[in-house]
Amino acid sequence: MTNYFSSEFKLGILGGGQLGKMMLYETRKFDVQTFVLDPSNEAPSRIACNQFEQGDLMDYETVLNFGRKVDVLTFEIESVNVEALEKLKEEGIKVFPAPETLRKIQDKGIQKEFYLENDISTAPFKKFTSKADLISAIENVEVDLPFVWKNTTGGYDGKGVAVIKTKDALKDLPDTPCIAEKLIPFKNELAVIVARSPSGEVQTYPVVEMEFHPEANQVEYVICPARIDASVAEKARALAKKVSEAFEHVGLLAVEMFQTKEDEILVNEVAPRPHNSGHYSIEASYTNQFEQHIRAILDLPLGNTQSKVGGVMVNLVGEEGHTGNVVYENISEILAMKAVTPHIYGKKITRPFRKMGHVTIVNEDLAEARRIAEEVKNTIKVISE
Amino acid sequence: MTNYFSSEFKLGILGGGQLGKMMLYETRKFDVQTFVLDPSNEAPSRIACNQFEQGDLMDYETVLNFGRKVDVLTFEIESVNVEALEKLKEEGIKVFPAPETLRKIQDKGIQKEFYLENDISTAPFKKFTSKADLISAIENVEVDLPFVWKNTTGGYDGKGVAVIKTKDALKDLPDTPCIAEKLIPFKNELAVIVARSPSGEVQTYPVVEMEFHPEANQVEYVICPARIDASVAEKARALAKKVSEAFEHVGLLAVEMFQTKEDEILVNEVAPRPHNSGHYSIEASYTNQFEQHIRAILDLPLGNTQSKVGGVMVNLVGEEGHTGNVVYENISEILAMKAVTPHIYGKKITRPFRKMGHVTIVNEDLAEARRIAEEVKNTIKVISE
Repeated sequence: MTNYFSSEFKLGILGGGQLGKMMLYETRKFDVQTFVLDPSNEAPSRIACNQFEQGDLMDYETVLNFGRKVDVLTFEIESVNVEALEKLKEEGIKVFPAPETLRKIQDKGIQKEFYLENDISTAPFKKFTSKADLISAIENVEVDLPFVWKNTTGGYDGKGVAVIKTKDALKDLPDTPCIAEKLIPFKNELAVIVARSPSGEVQTYPVVEMEFHPEANQVEYVICPARIDASVAEKARALAKKVSEAFEHVGLLAVEMFQTKEDEILVNEVAPRPHNSGHYSIEASYTNQFEQHIRAILDLPLGNTQSKVGGVMVNLVGEEGHTGNVVYENISEILAMKAVTPHIYGKKITRPFRKMGHVTIVNEDLAEARRIAEEVKNTIKVISE
Repeated sequence: MTNYFSSEFKLGILGGGQLGKMMLYETRKFDVQTFVLDPSNEAPSRIACNQFEQGDLMDYETVLNFGRKVDVLTFEIESVNVEALEKLKEEGIKVFPAPETLRKIQDKGIQKEFYLENDISTAPFKKFTSKADLISAIENVEVDLPFVWKNTTGGYDGKGVAVIKTKDALKDLPDTPCIAEKLIPFKNELAVIVARSPSGEVQTYPVVEMEFHPEANQVEYVICPARIDASVAEKARALAKKVSEAFEHVGLLAVEMFQTKEDEILVNEVAPRPHNSGHYSIEASYTNQFEQHIRAILDLPLGNTQSKVGGVMVNLVGEEGHTGNVVYENISEILAMKAVTPHIYGKKITRPFRKMGHVTIVNEDLAEARRIAEEVKNTIKVISE
């Protein structure tokens, strides 16, 4: 084994956002040297890494030159120059997750086809190279309304995804390669985080449930463990493991899934990195997702994925009507609630719906955690000065 | 309430060692700006703070100039220039713990007298201004052998403390002000961490037990909760709270105590900061000691001090016969054990008995955690290249 701890070994991280920032707590704990590349000079990871570089993650030369300085390279965001990663791998730099895995995930069309080829259940879809192709397919009744439109590249946090109910709604879509996916009337949206090391050791975290706001179509709470039957949970974990192994993925893979009305499990999409649905693990799990990612990519033994206590996570997003220097109103009130931990990402400017932080509520009694989470959500407000 | 989160507010920390480093995880989580002063340019806190300054913590001007840049000032080590803290307080900087509290604690003679004045049980002692005074007291049978000799200032980690069994052993002692304390035949060494805010909110952590090596007179394991009767634990927590209130202490106060053979509880000594005996809390407690210290000194509501699971901590100290660039031998083996988390402080050079890190083992079953801790201790070795 390489000596990673208090040594000359260097880990590179592409992206310096909140995921990178939380990953850095763990590299500090292990005293692993880190280099971070991010386009913003005010990236949350700027402090707590050993060396920070400002640069474009989509630029071939920038990523190549950065990667050459480190021994192992990982990323906290999918929008990175994959050709540079391929070149670095060729040159002998360890790149985890592997560039070929990232290539299959970056493009949602390729990702969906990968599921079909590997006998992984997913919602039926059709792939189009242009908006015109999509429209003619609808006119030829090859695609039925309503359906889920997805831009094949560049989408995150619900961007690049739309539920299309009428032909009229098509006019707002950009002219890009896309897929049209059958709208699944699901009972629950679930997620499982899988950790896999280069040696092939695999661990899955418990199934979490994304609870949606009944009116606004927005995830409000991530709940661990999901309040579902043990048999359904087992099926979801097995499917997520199958997905990770099919990709030969190294590091963390967050697998988002639908539980249909018939308790079938369909893969929705994956993220090859620590994920919002795993933030609860910092307080609730024996090994949190960020430490697990570091263990996986360094080919260290994986940690225990079980939970110590029940966990519920609430995202802190900017209030509508507020743009400017951020203020966390009533944060003192939520700190007075039982076992409530706010995580502030360190973005100075709030904008409507911008992800500014999250709050974890843990409790031996999951229902009580869920109750306190609602109180948290109704109390704290992310506003501008 | 001041707006501490993602704001212009500045927290200063005197000392940049491992305690400061672990405190910085929490300031990062809350996005509180931090300034750190430490004499070493390679201090573990150098990264993860917003601004690092190299300088002598005992130098009046250095501490004064540093303190003037921040809004709230705290410390992670007691050996700091207290006159500068007094001046800063006069100038309106919030200094927590308060300089007058630190003054009472820095000198062990004054600390012991404070216990007597405040009706706090402690081992009987006598105070001497020189070695000659001590020797004449022994000759006049005012001090009986064996006794515990303590240098009144500057001791830590067992330095400045010696058990004197024979007159012959006196010749190794330095000529400094000191105390001679009655040697207590204790059953257990216990500790309780108390958090107290400027508003007077007080929380105590569960009683921990320092388990000693049966031959070498060294703490091997810190165990939470201590394996003692509930009534004894309650007495210890009540006494620790009394000590904190007597000092009007703000922040964390670690109170080390003896449980005598008759189940009496005597205060041994205190540390006005996060403490080695509280490291288990990172993994085991709802609110870890470092977050609690930040909450306390910022006058935020205190967090839940209960444990999620049982915790045992093992210190990682340099092996005898090894000085040089550190290697953590068999760290991969301990990472494969259940719920084992190493914390590497980031010191490049190991020396015999130097504190290089610690390992926490958590488990629902404390006896199982204790068993794994022994396996950890027998497996990992801190050696040089």
